Amino acid sequence: MSVALQLILQLAILILAAKAAGLVSVRLKQPAVLGELLAGLVLGPTLLDIFHWPLFTAPQTTEEIVFELAELGVILLMFMAGLEVDVREMLHTGRTAVIAGVLGVIAPLILGGLASLLFNYPVSSSVFIGLILTATSVSISAQTLLELGVIKSREGLALLGAAVVDDVLVILVLSIFLATIGSSGAGAIAGVIVRMALFFVIAVPVGLWLLPRLTYRIERLPISEGVVSWAIVATLLFAFAAEALGQIAAITGAFLAGIFFGRTRLRHEIMTGMHTIAYAFFVPLFLVSIGLKVDARSLNGAAVIFMLAITLIAILSKVAGAGLGAKLAGMRWSESLRVGVGMISRGEVGLIVASIGLQQGLIDDSMFVSMVMMILLTTLLTPFLLRRVFPHKTSATAKEIAHGDKLADVSD
Amino acid sequence: MSVALQLILQLAILILAAKAAGLVSVRLKQPAVLGELLAGLVLGPTLLDIFHWPLFTAPQTTEEIVFELAELGVILLMFMAGLEVDVREMLHTGRTAVIAGVLGVIAPLILGGLASLLFNYPVSSSVFIGLILTATSVSISAQTLLELGVIKSREGLALLGAAVVDDVLVILVLSIFLATIGSSGAGAIAGVIVRMALFFVIAVPVGLWLLPRLTYRIERLPISEGVVSWAIVATLLFAFAAEALGQIAAITGAFLAGIFFGRTRLRHEIMTGMHTIAYAFFVPLFLVSIGLKVDARSLNGAAVIFMLAITLIAILSKVAGAGLGAKLAGMRWSESLRVGVGMISRGEVGLIVASIGLQQGLIDDSMFVSMVMMILLTTLLTPFLLRRVFPHKTSATAKEIAHGDKLADVSD
Repeated sequence: MSVALQLILQLAILILAAKAAGLVSVRLKQPAVLGELLAGLVLGPTLLDIFHWPLFTAPQTTEEIVFELAELGVILLMFMAGLEVDVREMLHTGRTAVIAGVLGVIAPLILGGLASLLFNYPVSSSVFIGLILTATSVSISAQTLLELGVIKSREGLALLGAAVVDDVLVILVLSIFLATIGSSGAGAIAGVIVRMALFFVIAVPVGLWLLPRLTYRIERLPISEGVVSWAIVATLLFAFAAEALGQIAAITGAFLAGIFFGRTRLRHEIMTGMHTIAYAFFVPLFLVSIGLKVDARSLNGAAVIFMLAITLIAILSKVAGAGLGAKLAGMRWSESLRVGVGMISRGEVGLIVASIGLQQGLIDDSMFVSMVMMILLTTLLTPFLLRRVFPHKTSATAKEIAHGDKLADVSD
Repeated sequence: MSVALQLILQLAILILAAKAAGLVSVRLKQPAVLGELLAGLVLGPTLLDIFHWPLFTAPQTTEEIVFELAELGVILLMFMAGLEVDVREMLHTGRTAVIAGVLGVIAPLILGGLASLLFNYPVSSSVFIGLILTATSVSISAQTLLELGVIKSREGLALLGAAVVDDVLVILVLSIFLATIGSSGAGAIAGVIVRMALFFVIAVPVGLWLLPRLTYRIERLPISEGVVSWAIVATLLFAFAAEALGQIAAITGAFLAGIFFGRTRLRHEIMTGMHTIAYAFFVPLFLVSIGLKVDARSLNGAAVIFMLAITLIAILSKVAGAGLGAKLAGMRWSESLRVGVGMISRGEVGLIVASIGLQQGLIDDSMFVSMVMMILLTTLLTPFLLRRVFPHKTSATAKEIAHGDKLADVSD
């Protein structure tokens, strides 16, 4: 079988499996991402081992190509995450979101890192595990809050704001960590800081000034799918520059490109086109690729214990950190608990950070499996726990909802 | 530099170069595809040789990955070509389109094959060169006719219909050729016919009956970008089955999938999504990849003479074949000439067929370059010649246009 033909069949199987499993997951009232991850686990070395089927006899394996397509999926995903960040709105969401977001990053970073050290992992791995624990996926919580009819409550809005603050912080901490790791000595670290600074000094004016002007210019030119194609090119260039020039992760560049394009008036058009490209093709490949990369059978007894312990810490540290932040910002204890619970779910950003750790050799296969399992478990538990701590829509009186809305409107 | 980072930069450069060159081409009143091909030639081994820049130091070359992405671009392009074929309308366009389309395939096939034999090429290569000459790209002509305001004239409509007939025939002849090549002996050929028949016996009922039902079902399911993603999966599966089961080209399967999806009421939605995916990312990569694959410096004196001769034959055989067809169907000589001239341009389908020939070893590098040059030249000449043979909009009287419209409306 030729390489092209083999790739065609594998892509069809992988996307079909991801979408079908995602559907089953949604039908079972679980997030689609859960099914897509499990589809990857089933098709990967853990069970079916798709890349080594006797059917596939191309002289060269197509595994590498699938993983590179998955990488492009990560870039697009981070671009879209950036596109959804409204910096001005974020700054206006105010104290609650910022304090909850910041403490929601610090607590898991420290507690996750310490726990990993207790399990005798090396310092760099331990810090990285803490870093994976800092991520928050707000989409699962947002969906649950929508279902419960409390998305516009004071807690709901604080939660959404805190999750965005969290995203930005995770990317920032990851970038600093990746830039400084392996560098020792004041000179090397100074060099790293200079390069990071250089990247931002070039990227920010380009993104704020040149990029919107170019985008509006391109919009008026006779180029087929010009704006979306340009958004892809610019995102790839930002991703490249972040890593090659700034020595920070490529995803940081993609995220930044998203923020810049999100400030243009073509945000909606770009989002629509990118959403199709990402979710119809690249993102399902990224989500299954997670499972394709790991052999869950590599989880031995000790690893399972670590996995359960780190999941517990992931949950407690996020609830405590973000919850305490909300309390410090003046919320009641019950409200603070809801904010904390809403931020438990890790999800895509956690998966992306974990993948980078595996790639860079900062965590090994078995730790990666534990991290994926932790992300799965927190994502599974979040809607369940949220329904417990939030008053149900059906039980909430009209007055309560109106009250919540009113509070939400005046929340700073 | 890591493989992923290298790929990111190369993709950004390739897409940017394709789109920019396409724009310059359009500004110079030439088709965008011309600029995109030239961008590939410049970035390829002929001049800049992008894959071997000293900057790119990844342990593994990314050339293969770019070419596989280009292959996916071809699949998507053929899918969209199929999506635009309306079988019922095609059958109703009637005699003129069918006769012009059929003779417009037969004449270049025979004359191109004979000319290649005269140049001492082996039989299989000669037949294949004839096959490349059969292709027609109607988009360039359609655009020119639109500009001239004569797209709805009798000749305009016949031309559009004939080009579709031509597309279907080229795919059919290519499929038969690829299926039978290398098979000798009655038994082997019978085997090939059985497999082709088996493919169609399975694919046609699936495409006519099962595919629309599944598509409508998926439309109602909670799957992100479900319909477009499903169209991609189904297209990949049809492409795979065509080659693996039917031993015909994968693009035939993709083309067929396009025809089947084109019959559903979701045609427009699928077209919109696929258009973004194809033209914002994959198709520019395909168009530059043509130039990346060839070293135009491999054209020696003999090859240049062959190239010029085959271009002349490509033009004359199409004008004569399609023109004679139109005349036989009852058009006047001047009208027949216009139909013939409108079909000169080869374009994407020609490029795709030529790429397959190179891949299968049916034509060598220097013949491939000649074919690409022939396609470029015919594409460049078509708008120029069309403007000569059609009465200009400005010179055409209102009466003439009304007459053309009336004739067009009643054309069987």
